[in-house]
Amino acid sequence: MNERQYEIHTDLALEARERFEGDAGEIPGVSLEEWYEEQARMKVTRVDVLDEQGASLMRKEIGTYITLEADFRDYEEACQKILAHWIRSLLPEGSRKILAVGLGNKELTADSFGPIAVSHLWITGHLAEEGMSVSGISPGVMAQTGMETARIVEGIVRQMRPDALLVMDSLAARSTERLGRTIQLTDTGICPGSGVGNHRRGLNRRTLGIPVIAIGVPTVVGGATIARDTLEGVLSLLCKQCEEDSVLKKMNSTEREMLVRQIAEPRFGALYVTPKDIDETVLHLGAFVADGINTAIYGYLL
Amino acid sequence: MNERQYEIHTDLALEARERFEGDAGEIPGVSLEEWYEEQARMKVTRVDVLDEQGASLMRKEIGTYITLEADFRDYEEACQKILAHWIRSLLPEGSRKILAVGLGNKELTADSFGPIAVSHLWITGHLAEEGMSVSGISPGVMAQTGMETARIVEGIVRQMRPDALLVMDSLAARSTERLGRTIQLTDTGICPGSGVGNHRRGLNRRTLGIPVIAIGVPTVVGGATIARDTLEGVLSLLCKQCEEDSVLKKMNSTEREMLVRQIAEPRFGALYVTPKDIDETVLHLGAFVADGINTAIYGYLL
Amino acid sequence: MNERQYEIHTDLALEARERFEGDAGEIPGVSLEEWYEEQARMKVTRVDVLDEQGASLMRKEIGTYITLEADFRDYEEACQKILAHWIRSLLPEGSRKILAVGLGNKELTADSFGPIAVSHLWITGHLAEEGMSVSGISPGVMAQTGMETARIVEGIVRQMRPDALLVMDSLAARSTERLGRTIQLTDTGICPGSGVGNHRRGLNRRTLGIPVIAIGVPTVVGGATIARDTLEGVLSLLCKQCEEDSVLKKMNSTEREMLVRQIAEPRFGALYVTPKDIDETVLHLGAFVADGINTAIYGYLL
Amino acid sequence: MNERQYEIHTDLALEARERFEGDAGEIPGVSLEEWYEEQARMKVTRVDVLDEQGASLMRKEIGTYITLEADFRDYEEACQKILAHWIRSLLPEGSRKILAVGLGNKELTADSFGPIAVSHLWITGHLAEEGMSVSGISPGVMAQTGMETARIVEGIVRQMRPDALLVMDSLAARSTERLGRTIQLTDTGICPGSGVGNHRRGLNRRTLGIPVIAIGVPTVVGGATIARDTLEGVLSLLCKQCEEDSVLKKMNSTEREMLVRQIAEPRFGALYVTPKDIDETVLHLGAFVADGINTAIYGYLL
Repeated sequence: MNERQYEIHTDLALEARERFEGDAGEIPGVSLEEWYEEQARMKVTRVDVLDEQGASLMRKEIGTYITLEADFRDYEEACQKILAHWIRSLLPEGSRKILAVGLGNKELTADSFGPIAVSHLWITGHLAEEGMSVSGISPGVMAQTGMETARIVEGIVRQMRPDALLVMDSLAARSTERLGRTIQLTDTGICPGSGVGNHRRGLNRRTLGIPVIAIGVPTVVGGATIARDTLEGVLSLLCKQCEEDSVLKKMNSTEREMLVRQIAEPRFGALYVTPKDIDETVLHLGAFVADGINTAIYGYLL
Repeated sequence: MNERQYEIHTDLALEARERFEGDAGEIPGVSLEEWYEEQARMKVTRVDVLDEQGASLMRKEIGTYITLEADFRDYEEACQKILAHWIRSLLPEGSRKILAVGLGNKELTADSFGPIAVSHLWITGHLAEEGMSVSGISPGVMAQTGMETARIVEGIVRQMRPDALLVMDSLAARSTERLGRTIQLTDTGICPGSGVGNHRRGLNRRTLGIPVIAIGVPTVVGGATIARDTLEGVLSLLCKQCEEDSVLKKMNSTEREMLVRQIAEPRFGALYVTPKDIDETVLHLGAFVADGINTAIYGYLL
Repeated sequence: MNERQYEIHTDLALEARERFEGDAGEIPGVSLEEWYEEQARMKVTRVDVLDEQGASLMRKEIGTYITLEADFRDYEEACQKILAHWIRSLLPEGSRKILAVGLGNKELTADSFGPIAVSHLWITGHLAEEGMSVSGISPGVMAQTGMETARIVEGIVRQMRPDALLVMDSLAARSTERLGRTIQLTDTGICPGSGVGNHRRGLNRRTLGIPVIAIGVPTVVGGATIARDTLEGVLSLLCKQCEEDSVLKKMNSTEREMLVRQIAEPRFGALYVTPKDIDETVLHLGAFVADGINTAIYGYLL
Repeated sequence: MNERQYEIHTDLALEARERFEGDAGEIPGVSLEEWYEEQARMKVTRVDVLDEQGASLMRKEIGTYITLEADFRDYEEACQKILAHWIRSLLPEGSRKILAVGLGNKELTADSFGPIAVSHLWITGHLAEEGMSVSGISPGVMAQTGMETARIVEGIVRQMRPDALLVMDSLAARSTERLGRTIQLTDTGICPGSGVGNHRRGLNRRTLGIPVIAIGVPTVVGGATIARDTLEGVLSLLCKQCEEDSVLKKMNSTEREMLVRQIAEPRFGALYVTPKDIDETVLHLGAFVADGINTAIYGYLL
C-alpha cells in the first residue's frame, strides 16, 4: 500500500478513497456506500473512517464524510432537500445555539465560498427566541489578520459557548471535473488553510470541545494535479510508440508520483488552478448551501 | 447645569465640552487645551476628563481625548505626522503586540471607516519578527453576526493576549461641519454601536484588562441634529417678528431641547444623516488613518 | 395653487399627487386610481399624467406611474407576481432586446439599488437564443466616471440598438415611512442624479428614441424632509399654547414651506437621510426587483 | 520558423519574442532593445513590431511594446517615475481628453486589475478645468453585460469623443515568474477577453479612430503552461536515463508543443492558474499603475 504515499493532496475523502479503487476488496477501517438520488440527479457517497488504521491509510480523520455530486442549479429544490437532510443528520440532537464560521479569503474569488455562505444565513443569535439560533462570523485568513484562524475561532467559542460549530470552506480537489459540482459534509471538523500551508491547528471536537460540522466545496485543484494529468497523458500517448523495455513503460505508480512531486512542487507550489467561471460558481454555491442550512435549522421550505 | 441633560448625543468629547461654552470659567473635573498646527492647517483640541465629576458632567469616560480638525487631503504629509505622533503618545510604552479592531458594518458606507482602516494596515502578527507587530480583525456588527461585538473581541483578546488594543470606528457627531474633517483619539476605549443602541458592553481597560486606544471619525449626525438646527433656525427667524411675551421667545434652552427630543425621537430615531460624498470620505480617511498607524508603529516615513 | 411651489422634492409621482390631497375634486390633467391587492397585502396606486397642464402642476413627465407599497418580504411570492405583471404591462408589445441599466453609486449603500438589481438579472444578450434577451450595465455616477451618465447610456444605446431600456435607480422620497417598502414603475424614463444635482439630461423616449421603463425604489429623504417634519411638529405643539394672533398660528402653508427652504437648503443641502438598516433593504429589494424582471421577461415562476 | 506555430498563447510581446531566442541574428520586422534601470532595479524591454512580416512572425500587432520588470513594491518611487515616463511617451502630443477603460471582471480576483486601476484614477472629466482631463469606466465582461465589451467602449467613444483611450487589463503570460512583477505598455491597443475566447473585436486606432494605449499586467498563466513545464521537466529528468534512440530523446520542439496542446487543451482549456497571493498583487498593482497615470497626466510628484 505504501506505493500510494506520494499522492496529490485532496480535501475530499471521496478522492482519498478513490486511490484504492483498483484494489480488490475492502480497505481496512474504511466503509463506503454510494447511491443515486433520482429526483435530484445526484450521486451521494458516504465514506466512514472507522478507526486509526483507516485514518492512517486515508490520511483523513475518523468520522463520517458525505459527498453530494450534482448540477445543483438544474434540480435546485430536490438538491436543497437532500443537503438540508444531511446537515440535520450530522448536527447532534439538541444543538440549539449554532455558530457558523466562514473560512477563507473573501478577496480571493476561489477562496470566498465560506464568507459568501455565512453572509446568506439567517442570523438570529442576538434575538431572544425559542428554538434554534444561528450566529455567524468570517474572520478572514492569516495573511489578513496576522492570527491563526483556529485560534480566533477558539477564542470566540470559549466566550460565546455555542452548542455546535458549522464551518464553511473552499476545498482543494484532485479532479478538475469535481470543481463547482460537489459538496462535502463531515463531522470531523476542518483545518483552516490546509490546502495552502500545514502544521496548522484544526477546528474539531478535540480542540474546541463541541461538535464541528464542516461543509466544503472544491473550488481549486493544485498545480500538481495538472502536472500529474499531463504526465499521465504523456505516458499514455508515448507508450504506444515505446519499446517494451522503455523507461516510460517500466515506471510504476510510485515512481510516477515521485516524478510529479519532483517536477510540480518547486514550480507550481505557490499556484492554484481554478475554472474561469468560478465567480458565478461561488456566488451560487454560497447562497445554495446557506439555504440548505437555513432549511435544516429553521425547518422552512420543507 | 442640569438644563443640559437633554443634549443631543455626540461621540466627540470636544462637542460634549462645547455645550458648556457659554459658561464663565472652568468645568470642574475637565481640562481643555486648544492649539493650531500651522504647517498642517490643523486645529488640535485636548480634553482631559479628570475625575468622576467631570465624567458625569461630560457623560464621557475619564481619560484623554485628542481631536484633530483639518482638511486632511490638502496637507496630507503634515497631518499624517501629527496623527502618528498622537497615536504613539497614547500607546503605552512597551506595547509590542498590537491588535487592531475595525468596528462597524462594511456594507453600510457611513459605518465602514473601521473595516477600511484595518484593511490598509501592515499586518505582521503572524511573522516572527523583532519589534512591534500588528494583528487585525473586523468582526462585523451584531445584526450580521448575532453576537455582541464586545464579546467577540473579548474572546479574541483572551486567546491572543495582545499588549494593547487599537479600535477604529465611525462616530456620530452633532455638527454637520465636522463630518469628514475630524479625527478623535482617546485612551478611554469605545462602546460598539453606541450611536445606535445602548446598554452595550464597552471595549476598555476595565473590561479587557489591557489599554484600549480608540480612533474615531465622525461620519453621521443623528436626525435630532437636523431637528435641533431647524428649530434654532425657526426661532431665530421668527423671534424677530415676535412679541416680547411670545411663547417662542420665552423658551429657555432646556425647553428647546425637550421640544427637539419630543419631535425628533419618534420620527427620526431609526434614521441617520450623512454627506452625499461619504463614500470618498471613508475611503480616504480609512487609508489616511491606517498610514498614521503604520507610521506610528513601524516608524517609517518619519 | 402657487402656494405649492415651494414643495420639497420627491421622485415619487404618488407623493407629488398627495400635495393636492386637501383639494376638493380632481386635478386637471391628472388621473388617479388606488386599490388594494389582498393576497400581497399591497396598496397599488396608478397616477396618469395626461397632458401638459397635469405635468406642470405635478412637475412630473406625461405618462403612467405605478406605485406598489407593501412589506415585500412577508408576501414575497404574491408581491413578485404583481411586480412582474406591471413590468410586462409597461414593456411595449414586441420588445425583444432589452437593455437594463443600473443607475447609482454602488459604493454608497443608499444609492446601490440599481447596480445590485442589474447584478441579479439573467443576462442573455450574448447568447443566440430565441425569444427575449437581456443585456445589462451599471455605468457608475458622474463623480466616478467624469461623464454624464445619460450620455454614456446614449452611446451604448446607439451602438447596441435595444428595443427597450429598463432603468433601475434609488429614489428620494418625502415620507420616511415609504423608505424600503415602495416600488415605483413608470414609462416616462428617468433623469440620473435628479435627486442630487440638476440640469441633467434625461433618459427617456425623446432623448433615446426607444421606450424607457424606470423602476425606482425610495431609499433616502432629503434633509429638508426632516426640517419640514420638525417645523410641523414644533408648530402643532406650540400652537396649543399660542395666542390666536401669534406669528406661528398665522403662517399659511406657503410661508411654512418658504421657512423650511430658507433654513434647510444652506444647512442640509449636501446631506441625505436614510434608515439604519438600508444595507439589508437594498440587498433584498435589488434581488426582489431582479426576480420580478426575470419573471416578466422569461416567464418563469408563473 | 514554422516549428513555432504551436506555441502557448501569451499576451506579452516580450514572451512572443523570447521564442526566437535561440535563433542566431535578428528577426525580420522586429526590433528589440533591453536595458536595466539601476535605481529602480528594473529591467526594461522595448519590442517594436515594424511591419507585416514581424507582426505575422510574432503574432502581435504592429507598434511599440514596453515591458517593465521589477519588484515594484521595493523601489516604488523610482519605478513610478519610469512608468509615468513611458505612459507620457506613448500618449500622443496634444491629447487632452483621456478616457480610461478598466477591462476585466472585478468579481474575479485575477481579472480585476483593470477595474481596480480605474477606481484609483483622479477623475476630472466632469470638471471644467484647464489642461488634461480624465474620464473612466469599467464596463464589466461579456458574461455580466451580455454585450461585447469592445462595442460598449465604441459606443461611449463615439458619444464622448475623447482624444485618446487608456485601457487597463489583466494579461495571460507564459512564464509563472512574470506574474505580479511585470507591466506591459503598448500603443497597439488590446482585444478584450483575448486570453479567454477569440474572434473578438479589438480596441485600437483602426476600430475606434483614436490612439489606444494599453497597460497590462500578467496575473495568470494558462493550464497549458503547467502542462508544458511538466513535460519539459519530465523530459529532462527521464532523458538522462534514456537510450539514445528513445522516443523521448528524438522529439523536437514542434513535436513537444503538439504533445502539450493535445494533452492540455481538452483538459485545462477552461482553467487558469494564478498565484495564491494574487489578491494583494492586483490591489497593489492597480493603485501603482493608477498613480503612474495620475503622475503622467497631471504632472504631480515629479
